[in-house]
Amino acid sequence: MTINFRTDLAVEAHEYVATQNPQGINGVDVQDQNFQDHFVKRVEITTPGASQQMGKQMGRYITLEMPDFRKKNTEFEERVSQTFAQQLNSMLPPSPNQNVLIVGLGNWNVTPDALGPKVIDRLLITRHLKSMMPERFSNNDYQTVSALAPGVLGLTGIETSEVIEGVVRQTQPDYIIAIDALAARDVSRLNTTIQISDTGIHPGSGVGNKRKGITREDLGVDVIAIGVPTVVDAVTVTSDTIEMVTNTVAQNSQGGQGGQFYQALNSLDGQQKEQLIAEVLNQNLGSLIVTPKEIDRLIEDISDVVAGGINAALHPVIDYQDATKHLY
Amino acid sequence: MTINFRTDLAVEAHEYVATQNPQGINGVDVQDQNFQDHFVKRVEITTPGASQQMGKQMGRYITLEMPDFRKKNTEFEERVSQTFAQQLNSMLPPSPNQNVLIVGLGNWNVTPDALGPKVIDRLLITRHLKSMMPERFSNNDYQTVSALAPGVLGLTGIETSEVIEGVVRQTQPDYIIAIDALAARDVSRLNTTIQISDTGIHPGSGVGNKRKGITREDLGVDVIAIGVPTVVDAVTVTSDTIEMVTNTVAQNSQGGQGGQFYQALNSLDGQQKEQLIAEVLNQNLGSLIVTPKEIDRLIEDISDVVAGGINAALHPVIDYQDATKHLY
Amino acid sequence: MTINFRTDLAVEAHEYVATQNPQGINGVDVQDQNFQDHFVKRVEITTPGASQQMGKQMGRYITLEMPDFRKKNTEFEERVSQTFAQQLNSMLPPSPNQNVLIVGLGNWNVTPDALGPKVIDRLLITRHLKSMMPERFSNNDYQTVSALAPGVLGLTGIETSEVIEGVVRQTQPDYIIAIDALAARDVSRLNTTIQISDTGIHPGSGVGNKRKGITREDLGVDVIAIGVPTVVDAVTVTSDTIEMVTNTVAQNSQGGQGGQFYQALNSLDGQQKEQLIAEVLNQNLGSLIVTPKEIDRLIEDISDVVAGGINAALHPVIDYQDATKHLY
Amino acid sequence: MTINFRTDLAVEAHEYVATQNPQGINGVDVQDQNFQDHFVKRVEITTPGASQQMGKQMGRYITLEMPDFRKKNTEFEERVSQTFAQQLNSMLPPSPNQNVLIVGLGNWNVTPDALGPKVIDRLLITRHLKSMMPERFSNNDYQTVSALAPGVLGLTGIETSEVIEGVVRQTQPDYIIAIDALAARDVSRLNTTIQISDTGIHPGSGVGNKRKGITREDLGVDVIAIGVPTVVDAVTVTSDTIEMVTNTVAQNSQGGQGGQFYQALNSLDGQQKEQLIAEVLNQNLGSLIVTPKEIDRLIEDISDVVAGGINAALHPVIDYQDATKHLY
Repeated sequence: MTINFRTDLAVEAHEYVATQNPQGINGVDVQDQNFQDHFVKRVEITTPGASQQMGKQMGRYITLEMPDFRKKNTEFEERVSQTFAQQLNSMLPPSPNQNVLIVGLGNWNVTPDALGPKVIDRLLITRHLKSMMPERFSNNDYQTVSALAPGVLGLTGIETSEVIEGVVRQTQPDYIIAIDALAARDVSRLNTTIQISDTGIHPGSGVGNKRKGITREDLGVDVIAIGVPTVVDAVTVTSDTIEMVTNTVAQNSQGGQGGQFYQALNSLDGQQKEQLIAEVLNQNLGSLIVTPKEIDRLIEDISDVVAGGINAALHPVIDYQDATKHLY
Repeated sequence: MTINFRTDLAVEAHEYVATQNPQGINGVDVQDQNFQDHFVKRVEITTPGASQQMGKQMGRYITLEMPDFRKKNTEFEERVSQTFAQQLNSMLPPSPNQNVLIVGLGNWNVTPDALGPKVIDRLLITRHLKSMMPERFSNNDYQTVSALAPGVLGLTGIETSEVIEGVVRQTQPDYIIAIDALAARDVSRLNTTIQISDTGIHPGSGVGNKRKGITREDLGVDVIAIGVPTVVDAVTVTSDTIEMVTNTVAQNSQGGQGGQFYQALNSLDGQQKEQLIAEVLNQNLGSLIVTPKEIDRLIEDISDVVAGGINAALHPVIDYQDATKHLY
Repeated sequence: MTINFRTDLAVEAHEYVATQNPQGINGVDVQDQNFQDHFVKRVEITTPGASQQMGKQMGRYITLEMPDFRKKNTEFEERVSQTFAQQLNSMLPPSPNQNVLIVGLGNWNVTPDALGPKVIDRLLITRHLKSMMPERFSNNDYQTVSALAPGVLGLTGIETSEVIEGVVRQTQPDYIIAIDALAARDVSRLNTTIQISDTGIHPGSGVGNKRKGITREDLGVDVIAIGVPTVVDAVTVTSDTIEMVTNTVAQNSQGGQGGQFYQALNSLDGQQKEQLIAEVLNQNLGSLIVTPKEIDRLIEDISDVVAGGINAALHPVIDYQDATKHLY
Repeated sequence: MTINFRTDLAVEAHEYVATQNPQGINGVDVQDQNFQDHFVKRVEITTPGASQQMGKQMGRYITLEMPDFRKKNTEFEERVSQTFAQQLNSMLPPSPNQNVLIVGLGNWNVTPDALGPKVIDRLLITRHLKSMMPERFSNNDYQTVSALAPGVLGLTGIETSEVIEGVVRQTQPDYIIAIDALAARDVSRLNTTIQISDTGIHPGSGVGNKRKGITREDLGVDVIAIGVPTVVDAVTVTSDTIEMVTNTVAQNSQGGQGGQFYQALNSLDGQQKEQLIAEVLNQNLGSLIVTPKEIDRLIEDISDVVAGGINAALHPVIDYQDATKHLY
């Protein structure tokens, strides 16, 4: 049995599969690390079978969970930015002075999809400075960083991966960091979770659909993906709510399991249920998303954390504690 | 029996109450007018009883429905802007050369709440021009228009109505037009409906909560309210979906009405159901809204229609056909 | 002899008058204080005669000079924000728990004039929080702060001072802090200088022209003005350049003072010279300004410093060292 | 004698050279066409000698002059958009259904340099639609258009031309249209002139400096360049003003030519004069530009005209009269 709902987060896929398989899942290693007010969970998928079960590529996924992030708090932002920088560093090649291309995926005109471009805007870009002022931007202090927000197919008419492939050919980076807004299943994860993975970005993930991948297979270099869930699909939210409500009612109603009707409701397969929900949601009008009302501010705040963490992880001269100070 | 869900639209309240009262509602007059590709519905609430039943103030509500508005189409926008201008005009005082204050309510930092400020930015403002260049801005061509985006309590620390009251005292307008983003119940109404009413804006309506009203009682002058639904509360969406899904299952399941479980589910009162939904939605994290993914663009487009219509309705010199041409 | 050029800065007026009066100016006290990489100059105008000579109201003017501010440097920004907070504090009433209204003047659609609204957006606003959660926002920790960006006459049709007067009547603040973009004479002051004064804002100052004042006389409460020069008028720049070039040529040319032509050039009075320049600059096309190319970024950076400093100066709970951390 | 000041406009270079060579310039053809309230001037540089004299590449330059453009007027914008579309069309390859890549050069964070990205945002992009819905987007109605805003070196660390070259390799366009903000010499040209040329974009032109070219030589396909002057360098403005003022004084002063001093002033060569001016302008602080105060609005308006004109020129389905209606 495989996962049948939409999430870009390995931790959500793992939670779901673990619930279905209480005896344990072969081929998945999980490690937890707790900080004062935030948490790190590492999930590694090591076998093709586990990959299929979870609907996620084989590889490493680090998830930083910050349940209180939506409450504005500068010191807390600094602490999580520091943890994020350290976790990101653990995914990066150890050799110094790499040539790194950072791509900010997504549509800058759609707030919940604008994470990538917003992070790009805050990064310390050095590729041109290192060639123009090599003494001031020495290898001991700075790696070679370039960045690009390639836009989305609807804005450019060009597949995102085509733009990136063209730039990779010209600039020959050692590896790529790709930043994207994600879809979660659980609304409590919106803007409170950052995922880092070494699997690249595969078609169909992200808030906007990209049809080609941004992976080592496509581009010839490693791709580290950084993502933050900013929306839940409205169909997912309502579907989960129905399940939760009917289960609760069933447990509380007379006779425990409630008879024919409950069975009828439960016997709806996923497709039928989605069709009913889609009627309510008038999906023909276009995608409906569930998002926090203050999404505009939350995207700014988490872009600070991600950009600050990337700057600190990449450039030896920037201390982890000062991650959010060096935004540009 | 009164309405027990959240909507700022009189037509939605009316639809609901009409379903509950198939024999008709006393004290509500409804008129329909159909155009090529958009529709106008007038609802007038004439008795306190009907007002209570519908949960809406006594007064006139004109609703412009444009089901295809989310598809970008310039000619269509021009046609609906023209209809909107005419309908708005039917609500305005007939005497020429009034002094009109237009207030754009809502938070410019929150996309779905930014309708009011965005409309204000596009209006033709004449109060200062008429005093500086009275010949060029004659009474035959232009009324006296001033405008204000007072912000929201969270941004200013001042009740919106306090700011407006202060400005009304200084500028002594003949009447006020207040523009606000609304909450609907039905997702298909998002960014496809414009409501005009002569009731002002009462506490608790709008996307952000305003605690004092913007009404003749509060301010001493008439207030025409213009609103566009831009969000549906996530609790409303999921609650409606559950009801629709269970009703459909009940009709299709064996034995017609499905037995105990359906009864148990239906016997949940509104409060219990909302509590269950709130658990799924983790409401303690803050408001979750359901909105079209392309809300950023939709808000721009409908702001053009509303602002163009206001300009044409107010200033004799602007033809209705050219409404959207005179945006500033 | 009085000053005959346009500057909103008391230090520039003083420099000019001091050059014309090498023997000293009666009625002006000047104090300097030097920090590691920034400087504070206090000018106090104590007599009507000095006021007339300098073209500035009687009162205190504190100027913070940060010649290197245009180079991005986070630590430096923190240091100047701290100094700014302390200097601002020296202008504020000593009694705790005042009710302060902060107004951000200027046009948010014109980058160099958007300083006021941008600062407002970053402030910690407490007036509503103190009434809703009095224990959490106690008088020991937080003063009562509300804020408003009233827009400009061209956007609203209402004099800025009318909007403020209306709000002052409603909210009865103890005093006002008014933030505005200024015009300087010397381009090196653009975005490198902050002026604080206890004189309020008088008609004709600021980047956009306000015709009524924002002063104790107009509003009945003290007005502390904070300003940053963001533009120099193009006429001023070219006029000064001509003077400097011709003087240099005169000194270097044979015969020292260069004969008839130099005399002819110098005998041009200000009005004639401005008329010649205006022809070159085609002033009929509208105002031309001189501004740094990167003005968009500079406005963001200096808004951080000003807003951080105001937050720290007003709220006892915020340390001066953490001024820029508490932006909202 | 060659031109020694900075302008990106062929008409300005021509005016200057024509003044210096009243007997005519070999190798330059000029044609004028006057419309009701705007003008078209075609300059063709046909010989290397003329190219060197004018400091401009050999090729065709069409200039659309709209002296009243800064005054907001929708009908006028429509008329000039239509003329612009026709003139642009005269530069484009006649064969139907070309694959066109449109690049919007410049820095979206710097208002006067943001023309290119802003135009890109308003274009009708069809490349992906034609492959997904070939019947709806037939060759008779739509050409194949893709678009890119590659950013600037300081934001990306990558030469603009490298990004474009990479994308050209991937998407194999038939030709390129490149849009850029320009520097003029005469302030009256700011936001009132559009230049179209078939020469591509050469290093050093544009508001931001691009070091590699965007030309047929660099990219292997034709490049049509569209530019609008949005700034004048502050040194240029002051230098021109000095010249104009001293000449006027000389003519009016006794003895006509004014003696030694005038000669001394005139004997300053360009470099000495620029050095003196640079001292006044403190150029070490970074570039100073002269720009209209309302540049933010003007850039929006002219982006509408340019984008509308490109849409109409490229897609047979769009009428020239409706150019500005089809912005996206």
